[in-house]
Amino acid sequence: MSLLTDFDQRDGKVLGEELHGFARELYPICRSITGDGVRRTLAMIEDRIPLQITEVPSGTQVFDWNVPKEWNIRDAFIKSSDGERVVDFKKCNLHVMNYSAPVRATMSLTELRPHLYSIPEKPHWIPYRTSYYKEDWGFCLSHNQLLVLKDDEYEVCIDSTLGDGSLTLGECYLPGRTADEVVISCHVCHPSLANDNLSGLTVATHLAKFLAGRELRYSYRFLFIPGTIGAITWLARNRSAAERIRHGLVLTCLGDTGPFHYKKSRRGNAEIDRAVAHVLSHETNSPEFLEFSPYGYDERQYCSPGFNLPVGCLMRSVWGSFPEYHTSADNLDFIHPAQLAESLHVCAAICDVLESNRRYRNLNPFCEPQLGKRGLYRSTGGGSIEKELNARLWVLNLSDGQHSLLDIAERSRIAFPIIRDAADLLHENGLLSVVSEDAAREKSSRDAAPNLAVARRGQL
Amino acid sequence: MSLLTDFDQRDGKVLGEELHGFARELYPICRSITGDGVRRTLAMIEDRIPLQITEVPSGTQVFDWNVPKEWNIRDAFIKSSDGERVVDFKKCNLHVMNYSAPVRATMSLTELRPHLYSIPEKPHWIPYRTSYYKEDWGFCLSHNQLLVLKDDEYEVCIDSTLGDGSLTLGECYLPGRTADEVVISCHVCHPSLANDNLSGLTVATHLAKFLAGRELRYSYRFLFIPGTIGAITWLARNRSAAERIRHGLVLTCLGDTGPFHYKKSRRGNAEIDRAVAHVLSHETNSPEFLEFSPYGYDERQYCSPGFNLPVGCLMRSVWGSFPEYHTSADNLDFIHPAQLAESLHVCAAICDVLESNRRYRNLNPFCEPQLGKRGLYRSTGGGSIEKELNARLWVLNLSDGQHSLLDIAERSRIAFPIIRDAADLLHENGLLSVVSEDAAREKSSRDAAPNLAVARRGQL
Amino acid sequence: MSLLTDFDQRDGKVLGEELHGFARELYPICRSITGDGVRRTLAMIEDRIPLQITEVPSGTQVFDWNVPKEWNIRDAFIKSSDGERVVDFKKCNLHVMNYSAPVRATMSLTELRPHLYSIPEKPHWIPYRTSYYKEDWGFCLSHNQLLVLKDDEYEVCIDSTLGDGSLTLGECYLPGRTADEVVISCHVCHPSLANDNLSGLTVATHLAKFLAGRELRYSYRFLFIPGTIGAITWLARNRSAAERIRHGLVLTCLGDTGPFHYKKSRRGNAEIDRAVAHVLSHETNSPEFLEFSPYGYDERQYCSPGFNLPVGCLMRSVWGSFPEYHTSADNLDFIHPAQLAESLHVCAAICDVLESNRRYRNLNPFCEPQLGKRGLYRSTGGGSIEKELNARLWVLNLSDGQHSLLDIAERSRIAFPIIRDAADLLHENGLLSVVSEDAAREKSSRDAAPNLAVARRGQL
Repeated sequence: MSLLTDFDQRDGKVLGEELHGFARELYPICRSITGDGVRRTLAMIEDRIPLQITEVPSGTQVFDWNVPKEWNIRDAFIKSSDGERVVDFKKCNLHVMNYSAPVRATMSLTELRPHLYSIPEKPHWIPYRTSYYKEDWGFCLSHNQLLVLKDDEYEVCIDSTLGDGSLTLGECYLPGRTADEVVISCHVCHPSLANDNLSGLTVATHLAKFLAGRELRYSYRFLFIPGTIGAITWLARNRSAAERIRHGLVLTCLGDTGPFHYKKSRRGNAEIDRAVAHVLSHETNSPEFLEFSPYGYDERQYCSPGFNLPVGCLMRSVWGSFPEYHTSADNLDFIHPAQLAESLHVCAAICDVLESNRRYRNLNPFCEPQLGKRGLYRSTGGGSIEKELNARLWVLNLSDGQHSLLDIAERSRIAFPIIRDAADLLHENGLLSVVSEDAAREKSSRDAAPNLAVARRGQL
Repeated sequence: MSLLTDFDQRDGKVLGEELHGFARELYPICRSITGDGVRRTLAMIEDRIPLQITEVPSGTQVFDWNVPKEWNIRDAFIKSSDGERVVDFKKCNLHVMNYSAPVRATMSLTELRPHLYSIPEKPHWIPYRTSYYKEDWGFCLSHNQLLVLKDDEYEVCIDSTLGDGSLTLGECYLPGRTADEVVISCHVCHPSLANDNLSGLTVATHLAKFLAGRELRYSYRFLFIPGTIGAITWLARNRSAAERIRHGLVLTCLGDTGPFHYKKSRRGNAEIDRAVAHVLSHETNSPEFLEFSPYGYDERQYCSPGFNLPVGCLMRSVWGSFPEYHTSADNLDFIHPAQLAESLHVCAAICDVLESNRRYRNLNPFCEPQLGKRGLYRSTGGGSIEKELNARLWVLNLSDGQHSLLDIAERSRIAFPIIRDAADLLHENGLLSVVSEDAAREKSSRDAAPNLAVARRGQL
Repeated sequence: MSLLTDFDQRDGKVLGEELHGFARELYPICRSITGDGVRRTLAMIEDRIPLQITEVPSGTQVFDWNVPKEWNIRDAFIKSSDGERVVDFKKCNLHVMNYSAPVRATMSLTELRPHLYSIPEKPHWIPYRTSYYKEDWGFCLSHNQLLVLKDDEYEVCIDSTLGDGSLTLGECYLPGRTADEVVISCHVCHPSLANDNLSGLTVATHLAKFLAGRELRYSYRFLFIPGTIGAITWLARNRSAAERIRHGLVLTCLGDTGPFHYKKSRRGNAEIDRAVAHVLSHETNSPEFLEFSPYGYDERQYCSPGFNLPVGCLMRSVWGSFPEYHTSADNLDFIHPAQLAESLHVCAAICDVLESNRRYRNLNPFCEPQLGKRGLYRSTGGGSIEKELNARLWVLNLSDGQHSLLDIAERSRIAFPIIRDAADLLHENGLLSVVSEDAAREKSSRDAAPNLAVARRGQL
């Protein structure tokens, strides 16, 4: 049974609730690029899938960067002279500018004001701001909150710590028949924001859960890492694992009701780009395809010129294009069970293409083989033919050792699973052979280098 | 004089009537993939052009297939208990499912019904059905006929034979200066159906008649063969002739009033694909171009991956897309003299491109040569230039030994004959030389291998 | 400071008046492909920029052509029997067909008529006609003038000379760091016609004036030459200089109010074609791009197959497409200071691209370098990024040693100057190195062959 057929046997409704439920559990945690929020998040992922946790000490050089100090926060507030917490971290962790240095002071509204961030156009929403690499502090609040602040002396407290510690990476490695890897990467550094990126994180976790224990062609590596510095740190410490990456996806913003958007890898026409384009075109409504650009999520690092990995970014609505982006309105109501489940289905369909894409050779290349005598043709001539028979003819015609099943699916405009099923049937009937190079590539490459994956994992 | 100029000297009206008249003669014959219907058809073609007939015995293996038993039919009917022939092969040969095994029985309407085929949506039309490779029998009738059949005991008779015999191929070979071949293929296996494919058959016959005896660059091979099994049989027996095919066309559905459709070869950008696209774009209204697909007519076999020949399919309306397709409504009224004549003109224009497409070298490649002193330029400057002069400038500019006349016609958007005439004029004036490789290719390749074509023909 | 930044510091209004003023001075002169009109024109250009004048004797063979006899004219008229000059060369030099042989005769209107040219559809305008290569004579006049000519005996006088002399070429060579050349070519053979081509001539002169004395990467060669025979003569005598041409533009029709049109070089995708497309798309409204064709201005010669130089043609309105073309209505009112100045700006912007287009190598190719610690990134995260920062990310991402700045500008859709500034900034910050091959190509190639340019110039 194909991966996708198997996947589609589960109840999408139940799955959607499971995904949303997981997001609900994760939502309250105050995450950042380092600290206990990430650790608690990874622990909750580890409840679902095997996870390897790596701590990289502050100050460690990673390419042109250094791992920053670790940030943690217990409490934060702005208290008016009458003792009321007019801004309270305990109510919403977005209220503190992420990575704010500790502060305990009393000051006038005038002194406080340069540290306050709001969105005048969306007076009910709290913005999300960060200051990772410049020591600073600040509060984010709704514009309505800001407007009612009186001229007063305020007690300002940010009970945070910023000191030596470590950056935490989570990694789930699922070994396949070959050491060639598919990497699925998502950032786990955002606090109470649902679409960006609890959606990506829950979909990735459940994709790993679905793939775990299955007989797989590729090895799959799921990275649950802080944005930018996490990807840089992982890449700096795993150069040879990076060389084994054949296909990759960054997952984010997968829970809202927008149509799918796929941002292509820097290569623009890699197999992953074509596989995603094919799946989205056949399985979803009005998908859109974006050319690579060097700003965005961690595809920025995977697609830096030294790596130039075939890694694209799968989204529904695009970051920055929806008003809720990076505000308190990107909450649990903004993401939906049905959309999360559909995103997971799309991911499974993409893996399904990657897993079974290969090239065949037609063993009767001169004229068509007689399908009828093998029960593979209709018996009464004169009318039109069905999709399945059409797929068989396409596979036979293009299986010249050059065209892959994905090539055939693209050229015939027939969905990949129908093409793959046709190839399986023709193969069973002795009409096709797998191109030997592809067959070799799919055979366990571990036989030759049995300790490779283990070695790589130990190194982390 | 160019092939096309010569062709266009005949009276299109007379030609159209001739083509339609030939179709009228052929229409009543009950053809199938084997049997006397094909033989009678080929005999009528042989009245017009030299034809070599080949009989291939039943059972002969041809690639993955075997030549089937030969089918012939004398009579068939369904007779009601009052002696009336309610369905009568003598009235229309479509009434019998083609290749029906012999039957002589009496049965109730209930027993008979599974053997009856009609088209409820087109209650006046008789469908065309076949059962070549599964022994079966059946009757096709109009839905109105079906509706009035009473509950009765019917005498059912199909006076056919299905036994050892042979499959018949017709072939007209016109030797040219070179052994390189242009193949024109049409199926001759359909009974009383006019557009599919008496139209292709009559156009091919008249094209051969026009080309016969002319000084030609290419050798032309016209194949009048049963669909699928005929093409497979010919290809299986003529592997080395197939290797000499440089360009090819399958001709079908050329008599209706639809715009031209051209289905490209599997290669998609072969010279034949470009020549047809050029001719149709310049000579006809609203032509449409279809990508190759592995379902259709005998291009399926020519374009199988082992051969991958540059063979496309020229049609007016596309099979399956017009309601009359494979019904009794595809009759002599559905095809028209003017459309048949226009189709023949298009074929001549395509051959004209193939015959004179070559590459030249501009002998004055540095700056323009002074056309004025050779009388090839206008004398008073300052206005715009005419098409013919523009064609001269294009030919001079692109004749760098790389661009063919068809390349130049495409890039300049000037019709091929005007480009060719410009090249001829410049050549006569000593301004161009034929690229030596092309010149060699056009010289009689028979000098080197004088018996090749004869040998090949003898083998058939 | 970049070439373009420097250029844009001048006052466009003043510049426009200067260009138009120059055109006004040149307008009255009766130019042709040879003779004193060209010499006087070149002398006026020489007042502004250094110019080398070359005289090539009549009869000299230049490729397939010979330099024609030299033509000069003092006076011409048609006088009616009552002594009135009904057509008078002194009023407008278009009245005489250019290159008319000397005539002095008396004749009837009937005899005269075949020598008279007018435009019935534009009865006020005088057409421009030439007869360079066929000895002939004629008068051009407005259709209104023609209509009132009475049946009379006319005194006809063309006081011209057509004899041994020479063809005159003007050339301004600005040496750069390398011997690689950019050629700017314009025809100087049209009499009182403003857009075609005093516009090209004045823009070219001022572009040379702007570039002169500047530190340049390329050497620039400005050709002020008669159309067709001038380009052929120059190319015939400067084969090795032609080999050094890396980019080139023919300038014409640059003063009218139409949108810019660029006719691509024969290569179609040369760096000059891409540079012009980029500049026009970013700097002007509704530019249009025309494929190469072998009819037009001197790009015909530069793009002949033996040379196939990367030379395109920059215009506003296209010759032949505006009714004033080649008539007396193409006068000083038809060209405008603002349009001339904009055309010059566009030329400067094109040179700016050519001068600074190069490839860099990102010295931190693995992941992004940390721009923040170098003050090259914003400090507060969470919002969108500005154009300049985006340009930096693009340059870093694509600087893999393969992509040029123009490649990056095209792919990012960011204007070249912003990309170039980003590259400069990153280069200053030690994040990029120039690809060594490009660096070498930009270093003075004169060190290796110091006398090359001088030698070539001496040969002229």
